[in-house]
Amino acid sequence: MRNIKITVEYDGGNYQGWQIQKDEPTIQGVIEEKLEIILNQKARVIGSGRTDAGVHALNQVANFFTSSKIELESLKKGLNSLLPPDIVIKNLVEVDANFHARYDAKSRVYKYLIFSGDSLSTFYRRYSWQVHHQLDVERMRKAADCLLGWHDFASFQGADGENHSSERKIVQFTIRGRAKGWIITTVEANAFLRHMVRNIIGTLLEVGKGSMIVEEFRDILESRDRRKGGITAPPQGLFLKEVKY
Amino acid sequence: MRNIKITVEYDGGNYQGWQIQKDEPTIQGVIEEKLEIILNQKARVIGSGRTDAGVHALNQVANFFTSSKIELESLKKGLNSLLPPDIVIKNLVEVDANFHARYDAKSRVYKYLIFSGDSLSTFYRRYSWQVHHQLDVERMRKAADCLLGWHDFASFQGADGENHSSERKIVQFTIRGRAKGWIITTVEANAFLRHMVRNIIGTLLEVGKGSMIVEEFRDILESRDRRKGGITAPPQGLFLKEVKY
Repeated sequence: MRNIKITVEYDGGNYQGWQIQKDEPTIQGVIEEKLEIILNQKARVIGSGRTDAGVHALNQVANFFTSSKIELESLKKGLNSLLPPDIVIKNLVEVDANFHARYDAKSRVYKYLIFSGDSLSTFYRRYSWQVHHQLDVERMRKAADCLLGWHDFASFQGADGENHSSERKIVQFTIRGRAKGWIITTVEANAFLRHMVRNIIGTLLEVGKGSMIVEEFRDILESRDRRKGGITAPPQGLFLKEVKY
Repeated sequence: MRNIKITVEYDGGNYQGWQIQKDEPTIQGVIEEKLEIILNQKARVIGSGRTDAGVHALNQVANFFTSSKIELESLKKGLNSLLPPDIVIKNLVEVDANFHARYDAKSRVYKYLIFSGDSLSTFYRRYSWQVHHQLDVERMRKAADCLLGWHDFASFQGADGENHSSERKIVQFTIRGRAKGWIITTVEANAFLRHMVRNIIGTLLEVGKGSMIVEEFRDILESRDRRKGGITAPPQGLFLKEVKY
């Protein structure tokens, strides 16, 4: 059996997330459906992790096993011609039989785009969170600093998270204010809990607005109590940017 | 009666063009529907011109008359809260009773985005034309030069154009090659015939590919015969950028 690693870009706006579901359009579901047509056999596509409904990916990584001898370039062309325009296979490479897209990932990098202001172009509405407040980026950055390193992120875990442990290690958290109201957040961790980025962003927004002080943010992290956190930021601002191995 | 001039941005991907139609979603139709809710009276919205199904606008201009005394800022907020996210009223100003968005327009500026290559990001697919050929931008520019000034553009008129005359004046036609396969065309004319930009772009593509020489392009213009032209470029690469008064 050959083990094929794929890099996938997708606009998640029309999907119920990455993971295959019965009767709902998902990225994994569509890729497996098109793979079966080309390979003439079923293949289970293993993603580096799930992304939620509406979340995008610039470089999601996945792998699958196949006994097909099809050339990789033909497979790529064939897949992309069958896939809808909002899912693109960017790269496809044969890897060692031991490679596992999920278990071998060392870290994941996400980006979150916030637009602060009233005049967001329609062309960015599918790809960002518009907030009608002035945000203090410096304060948000101070609060985010306390997230770095190993922590129990239970306060920022989605209600239906299924993990045995909610300890994760954040190795990078940058918040950059850009011209015209754009705020771009980049966060890298060994792994993420369900809704973790969006819950952190939603709570950081309170800090940016001035309705929460930095110490309160730190208290929320330390409380390990989801009920203390802020709202969950909407999915369309979130992009899985990179999976590192 | 007050005469209100509006500047509208829209993602045309989900609409059957600007102009109101029975039973089909159109930009004008949606704006008139929401205006009626807010003004509590019907208002006919006069656009600077139609845009085709799937064509976008960064700054479409329109005007309408109303006896309502509503403040403009409230009208803008109200409209934008009722409008779907792919239509945005960017600006709203009271103008002289004589102002007419269509008849007073001195010129219209369109942009057309071409991506030449195999690896177009999914995030640009709704907003550009992907072609899988190398294009010679310099040759396209030479061909486009012969379009400048007053010409009878019958060769580039859509089959169901309804104009008495097909003479128009192109005052600007620039083609810029950008990094990573992007080609950005800007064209300004006093007015445009139906499908004129898309028919010109489709024919220029033949020149860029090398399947048509510059002299043939000029012959097509001079023939005033639509059957001689190239294909109609798809709508999603086209943006109405500006209307000048």
